[in-house]
Amino acid sequence: MGTPSRVAIVGAGLIGRAFAITFARAGHEVRLWDPAPDAAAAALAYVRSVGEDLARNDLLNGRSVDDIVGALTPCASLAEALDGVRWVQECGPETIEVKRASFAEIDRLAPADAVLASSSSALLPSAIFEAVPGRARGVVAHPINPPYLVPAVEVVPSRWTDPAVLERAVAFLAAAGQVPLRMEKEIDGFIMNRMQGALMEEAFRLVAGGYASAADVDRGIADGLALRWSFIGPFETIDLNAPGGIADYIARYQPMYAGLFQGMRERVDWAEVAAGGVEAERRAAVPAAQLPARQRWRDRRLMALIAQKRRADRDIGR
Amino acid sequence: MGTPSRVAIVGAGLIGRAFAITFARAGHEVRLWDPAPDAAAAALAYVRSVGEDLARNDLLNGRSVDDIVGALTPCASLAEALDGVRWVQECGPETIEVKRASFAEIDRLAPADAVLASSSSALLPSAIFEAVPGRARGVVAHPINPPYLVPAVEVVPSRWTDPAVLERAVAFLAAAGQVPLRMEKEIDGFIMNRMQGALMEEAFRLVAGGYASAADVDRGIADGLALRWSFIGPFETIDLNAPGGIADYIARYQPMYAGLFQGMRERVDWAEVAAGGVEAERRAAVPAAQLPARQRWRDRRLMALIAQKRRADRDIGR
Repeated sequence: MGTPSRVAIVGAGLIGRAFAITFARAGHEVRLWDPAPDAAAAALAYVRSVGEDLARNDLLNGRSVDDIVGALTPCASLAEALDGVRWVQECGPETIEVKRASFAEIDRLAPADAVLASSSSALLPSAIFEAVPGRARGVVAHPINPPYLVPAVEVVPSRWTDPAVLERAVAFLAAAGQVPLRMEKEIDGFIMNRMQGALMEEAFRLVAGGYASAADVDRGIADGLALRWSFIGPFETIDLNAPGGIADYIARYQPMYAGLFQGMRERVDWAEVAAGGVEAERRAAVPAAQLPARQRWRDRRLMALIAQKRRADRDIGR
Repeated sequence: MGTPSRVAIVGAGLIGRAFAITFARAGHEVRLWDPAPDAAAAALAYVRSVGEDLARNDLLNGRSVDDIVGALTPCASLAEALDGVRWVQECGPETIEVKRASFAEIDRLAPADAVLASSSSALLPSAIFEAVPGRARGVVAHPINPPYLVPAVEVVPSRWTDPAVLERAVAFLAAAGQVPLRMEKEIDGFIMNRMQGALMEEAFRLVAGGYASAADVDRGIADGLALRWSFIGPFETIDLNAPGGIADYIARYQPMYAGLFQGMRERVDWAEVAAGGVEAERRAAVPAAQLPARQRWRDRRLMALIAQKRRADRDIGR
């Protein structure tokens, strides 16, 4: 799966367009299909505008914007989009009915050896693929948006997924420059939303209890914990934070952490905490009308960070 | 408190030496005292060696290594170290008896207007300062090590802390180039260890359940969630992840997260999970003998990241 080949993207919304960039940058020929007649063509204009920013940050693997846009082919029918592909990335609406109907058709029309991947963030692959005849070749491949900047993609098997398909999915995404997270079995929230949920729940609890502002909690992550997490992750962080490694760290610090968890068991209503002050705090920091500009600023910062990580991987080592 | 002045560091171990760099870099005259006779002098050699690395990454605010080392004065007595200081950073052993005894003496010897700050990571300031006559001027100022690279410092008042002292502590640390997190009241684990504990607990749970390897969980943070967290934090991340901001995000996604928390209430024994595979996985990645070299690698990566953040703050904006 490491050699460039033809892939299909089904659903040309935000995630589909972003995956189109990822796959085109990896040298694949990308077929785009969307049930809305103009969506696939609109995707090309979007890819061109994002591509300029990526080129400026040297994030197109040496390809030009024209190379990327030229690798995309909007298709008039699903059958045409699936012709001869090795990989299908489904990026449709996040409802189980739509996903099931979509994969029934995709399974019928795609080449027998194509891997069928859903971008679903919250539906379990067993629920999506249960009634699909070719369910052994189905997985969830869930990115963090946008995948052309954030490399992590969760690869989640259903209970029917052929282990060889899971292997091929992981290898395909790695060869495309992503960082696949291989799950051995499914669980609600996969890896990343579970980790984000656990962290956010405690963040809302601290604000709800009047201990600190949301801004100061953000600073504790952005100017504190997430600096190391952003290049080694939390397990390696604690492994390097005690002379004898992770077992030594746990022996020293688990008693301190254990004392905290009792106070973390009650649910916090995020909506109530937001209405009680966090939303006002955020809108004072970034007024609603400025959110799109702030999102563009975030993407520029993210590109600069990714470019720095690539340089550091090369110059200092991984 | 923004103008350079004299500060004292009590305890010249790992944290004390690191704070010495932070304060000297900010232009302060730094008095060092440690009950072990050679510790303060040994700190100078350490500061010189770390200083070279910081200078190479342009992280000394334009000062030379000689400037930094020249700003440090090892003192023969606590009284000498505290003479004329505006700030005392206590960095002794993490036991309540030692902290209490230490602050009883510090409070007696320090100028009446000096702020007394403990680096304690886990002891509550009310427990530390309860019996100290000048308890109104005591706070915890807990860094992530090393503070000369990781700017976040939790500033935690005891129940007796004068609000004006809390203000002065926040202003002093900010003027020294740190990012103070202002806590309105104390809680076990403060902000950062609570956030880290909540995240790690879920990380250990995923590995314990056989869903993914520790390496893949690390990748989900390092190549996924922590990229944005490392410059905007988790609240701003979700605020920018829905068209209508944080309230819109919560309306869309809290139901999905709510479904996860029931499965997060049982404690996970980290030691058991480590013995069951994570420690072996980590030692296969980094053998025990290589841990010191890997820690130096981490510090070089951290310096490069901090340097990138400063450039991006300037070129792209904050």
